[in-house]
Amino acid sequence: MTSDTTAPSTPDDALTRVRLDIAYDGTRFSGWSRQPGLRTVQGELEAALETVFRRATPAPTLTVAGRTDAGVHARGQVAHLDLTPEQRASLERPHRGKEKPGAPTGVSAIARRLNGIAGLDSDVYVKSAELAAPGFDARFSAVWRRYEYRVADAAAERDPLRRASTLWLPGELDLAAMQHAAESLLGLHDWATFCRPRAGATTIRTLQQFAWARGDDGVLTAYLEADAFCHSMVRALVGATVAVGEGRMPPRRLLELRDERTRGSDFKVMPAKGLALTEVGYPPDSELAARADQTRARRQAPAIVDPDQV
Amino acid sequence: MTSDTTAPSTPDDALTRVRLDIAYDGTRFSGWSRQPGLRTVQGELEAALETVFRRATPAPTLTVAGRTDAGVHARGQVAHLDLTPEQRASLERPHRGKEKPGAPTGVSAIARRLNGIAGLDSDVYVKSAELAAPGFDARFSAVWRRYEYRVADAAAERDPLRRASTLWLPGELDLAAMQHAAESLLGLHDWATFCRPRAGATTIRTLQQFAWARGDDGVLTAYLEADAFCHSMVRALVGATVAVGEGRMPPRRLLELRDERTRGSDFKVMPAKGLALTEVGYPPDSELAARADQTRARRQAPAIVDPDQV
Repeated sequence: MTSDTTAPSTPDDALTRVRLDIAYDGTRFSGWSRQPGLRTVQGELEAALETVFRRATPAPTLTVAGRTDAGVHARGQVAHLDLTPEQRASLERPHRGKEKPGAPTGVSAIARRLNGIAGLDSDVYVKSAELAAPGFDARFSAVWRRYEYRVADAAAERDPLRRASTLWLPGELDLAAMQHAAESLLGLHDWATFCRPRAGATTIRTLQQFAWARGDDGVLTAYLEADAFCHSMVRALVGATVAVGEGRMPPRRLLELRDERTRGSDFKVMPAKGLALTEVGYPPDSELAARADQTRARRQAPAIVDPDQV
Repeated sequence: MTSDTTAPSTPDDALTRVRLDIAYDGTRFSGWSRQPGLRTVQGELEAALETVFRRATPAPTLTVAGRTDAGVHARGQVAHLDLTPEQRASLERPHRGKEKPGAPTGVSAIARRLNGIAGLDSDVYVKSAELAAPGFDARFSAVWRRYEYRVADAAAERDPLRRASTLWLPGELDLAAMQHAAESLLGLHDWATFCRPRAGATTIRTLQQFAWARGDDGVLTAYLEADAFCHSMVRALVGATVAVGEGRMPPRRLLELRDERTRGSDFKVMPAKGLALTEVGYPPDSELAARADQTRARRQAPAIVDPDQV
């Protein structure tokens, strides 16, 4: 076996890869990705990891499935980190005086300790930490991402308790028209009309699901799934179908716009607050490594980079 | 007809009574009732009413169905206010320069104008303003109040976006035991065990509904309905059944405690954040006035006052 068969982010055999499942209220975060001087989800979690592993350097860093923008929420974010043998061993020792006797040790303790540092009422919550299956890469093994966008129009109940994750719009939206418009967009297309341009990045994606539904409380939710979304794509697709629901854009115009592949002013990119990453899909364990290699290879091809920022 | 047949808070024939339906996130409010130097829902809304009716004095004041405590939320709060003929007439004039031409005038404009003053992203939202039926009194005509309490135990999804309205508890609660315990409490009883004592106030109430259920997201919700609740009663009943669900209190002890009619330390009064007033019930329009007279008469009897503070 030569070193060529090992792609760069596959962990060294000596390292233990851990999968984290994470939820956050994005309101007070400047997005996922660490940025100097700004409060970000990655920044907060990596600072907490430094505390958890304070006796063992280097502190683990996070690789994430969906690098959400400022203000975007997540209920089903996935990230991974790699532990040195010393870091892993440190998890087998109970935190004397900080945890109840008998609290479980091992990798799952990472979630409990991170949440303990964040405190109750924190806007980020680590749902679980577990040993990753061989070949797992939170970013490159992912086969789809799901997002939801919540809109309360005049026909919906407007609940102030959910105002941080729901866009309130005046007037009543035409749900049937929005459903039709969303369905007409499905499939493999070039989404340049809906993507913030990025040098050398492809805008070709497969939109596997895009549906609108009204809940019991009247709130309209858009459900979207794609292999990956380019930057601003979910919020632009939501804005375009809302323009149809408001009667401001004929459904036919929506398809014309998509096929023109240039950004215009026919619709708005919706505010971040209504958007949440709800789930990331991975293949069966036996296909994790192959999927990661395939995504990495595509990423290294010219004109195809960064398939996962929303 | 003598003046005796008109109870004090029935509006003068010249006044127009308006019903407001209101929702709020109680997190940053020191409860419903106006208090000097504190931010309260009543205080904020009455200040906004002064602005709406700035040319006509006195500014209307609010009478409410459920005087919620600090931190308690509402999705279905009801209040009323009385307008002088001049105030009512002012609603027929469009707000030039402040509202779109053609915006509806009349009583419904109160809701739109109050929400306009509060602004988007406000933690209080007036769902509607409408002419009250004859004899309607938001407080005294009410025949029942409904509350919900949300708890996320270890088996539930813990969503940071809903952390302001959900209590997070460690461990897994025994739902079946809590359901049994709740059901065993139903009926007409003296609830002194669960009420913060108040001089001269009765603690006899009819608990018409008390049920626990787990939602799709695993969150446990308690649903309670009574003619009225005494102070702290909902949060004490929730705390007592949670103690059963945690295995800390035998179900039989719960009924013993109720019948002892003294407050003890067997359970906790739960924090305000999980609690929301969801609905207030009123009789058919033809019975509104009779119901209000009946409640007022009961209130004036010795030892029966303040049936509606939670």
